[in-house]
Amino acid sequence: MKKVVVIGGGTGNFTVLSGLKKYELDLAAIVSMADDGGSTGVLRDELGVLPPGDVRQCLVALSNSSRLMRSLMNYRFDNGQLKGHSFGNLFLSALEKVTGSFERAVEEVGKILAIKGKVIPVTQNKVRLKMILHNQKILDGEKEIYLSDEIDQGYKSIYLEPFPKADHHAIDEIMNADLIIFGPGGLYTSLIPSLLVEGISKALRDTKAKKVFVMNLMNKHGQTTSFKATDYLREIKRYIGDDVFDHILINNKQPPEHLIETYSKEGNLVINDLESDSRIIVAGILSDTLKDVKSEMIQKNLIRHDSKKLAEELMLIVNSL
Amino acid sequence: MKKVVVIGGGTGNFTVLSGLKKYELDLAAIVSMADDGGSTGVLRDELGVLPPGDVRQCLVALSNSSRLMRSLMNYRFDNGQLKGHSFGNLFLSALEKVTGSFERAVEEVGKILAIKGKVIPVTQNKVRLKMILHNQKILDGEKEIYLSDEIDQGYKSIYLEPFPKADHHAIDEIMNADLIIFGPGGLYTSLIPSLLVEGISKALRDTKAKKVFVMNLMNKHGQTTSFKATDYLREIKRYIGDDVFDHILINNKQPPEHLIETYSKEGNLVINDLESDSRIIVAGILSDTLKDVKSEMIQKNLIRHDSKKLAEELMLIVNSL
Repeated sequence: MKKVVVIGGGTGNFTVLSGLKKYELDLAAIVSMADDGGSTGVLRDELGVLPPGDVRQCLVALSNSSRLMRSLMNYRFDNGQLKGHSFGNLFLSALEKVTGSFERAVEEVGKILAIKGKVIPVTQNKVRLKMILHNQKILDGEKEIYLSDEIDQGYKSIYLEPFPKADHHAIDEIMNADLIIFGPGGLYTSLIPSLLVEGISKALRDTKAKKVFVMNLMNKHGQTTSFKATDYLREIKRYIGDDVFDHILINNKQPPEHLIETYSKEGNLVINDLESDSRIIVAGILSDTLKDVKSEMIQKNLIRHDSKKLAEELMLIVNSL
Repeated sequence: MKKVVVIGGGTGNFTVLSGLKKYELDLAAIVSMADDGGSTGVLRDELGVLPPGDVRQCLVALSNSSRLMRSLMNYRFDNGQLKGHSFGNLFLSALEKVTGSFERAVEEVGKILAIKGKVIPVTQNKVRLKMILHNQKILDGEKEIYLSDEIDQGYKSIYLEPFPKADHHAIDEIMNADLIIFGPGGLYTSLIPSLLVEGISKALRDTKAKKVFVMNLMNKHGQTTSFKATDYLREIKRYIGDDVFDHILINNKQPPEHLIETYSKEGNLVINDLESDSRIIVAGILSDTLKDVKSEMIQKNLIRHDSKKLAEELMLIVNSL
């Protein structure tokens, strides 16, 4: 069985894992630990736990349990003191408190959700994502970075504080993988943060695994404004230290004009300027239905990857290994 | 296999069920739904759910899952917005929200905890326990009744509002039981509230099951001040409408003087004035160790029943059926 490792965090990981779950694969998700917004941020601040949110999404994506259990994990309380907390986040945080170990908490919830594969935090260290802009401003935390609209004016550095060591399981998974899937996801909030953990970039350079980058569909206004495909690859290369990708998977299906219009304030489409690059694979991997808008994941963006089509393209790569 | 039904709520149910779990029995716990204090009260007020606290205790008592899962269910958050909430209460309330049914929530948590037997809310209606004192004061809610120290000055009535119907499963269990165990528990906060639900008292009068009352060890100051065994039986008879008990199980082991002293502000010992009553069974069913003080249940009162010894005495009754 081929070993496939997915790196990133949040909605991107959810989409990739949901699609790949249906295939005979040895799956592992390596999850960014930089999240500090929303329910996750409150739990970090008040309970001193590791961030549960992205891990929860991966656990749900890989779950083979009942639809009810998956809905429960994503259920958000809508009133009173608990307002905004997702139940799954509370589950992971309470288990971390009871066991004294986030790793153990993830393992236990994984059992209850009957997950296929493994979910591995990229680090067990408590970290905070920071960014220093060219104008000297310091963006303190993933949430501030997520909300910033001046990153496209230039930044000096982005780093995790304190400088964390990778979880050794994460390194093992990367070194022993047949295929590593990186992206899609927020460039500065999901993708680069995993690369800032000591050991991850070196492992990505050293592993014999094939590596595929799934290109984002949309730019984020004020952050990756008008980025083209090469801009993403250039930024990622800065942190990995080499251009490691064997394949770059890019959508070639045009979203409907009214959706592009709707999301024009959030950001514009990523242009494919890689046409002479032999590594690219273009495919119609855009979701064209609204049918799963109300499904398990709250989809903020209706211009998004189709998990089934994306998985089909990724499986063509797996089957060619 | 003999069918044994335990009625009450809170710590009393927990003690009885924990002991009986180890025997080959068809067990069911029928749980009072009047609780509105602490974490349970906040969840009722803010989320509009049914009270999870007593049900949670019964589920944990009957659980055959790992010690970790049982600890998790009783884990209380100790900081921030979540402070004071037990994780198990949040689990039941979130499941009630997701499924739209408390019954379904109890069933699902029961599966995860691998419980032996059934846990059945006495009613599915949302109720509030009220008491009118002789001095016209109205005690509004189980918490106010629990905290009151003037009930022993006399009360006019105690009732649930709105007047609830029993869950039909609760009635079925009572009608089909071989043995029904009532008590121990707070007289006005756990025992009588279950009898105030339409259908329960009639079922207790009509069923062919044998019935045993486990007499409380301690009185509660200002409520059952200086009550003797006959006082408990008289009060309970008022609500059942008949003296239904076939057996009355009473502890005869004297607690150490220093513990009686320690708890003298909370209340005094219940005196056994039933010596001419042929129904009584006296036995040393008092806990004599401190070893489980820090165990799964937070024991507020160190003068308490020993779940193992209590179960042994109850099994003598079961085996005589």
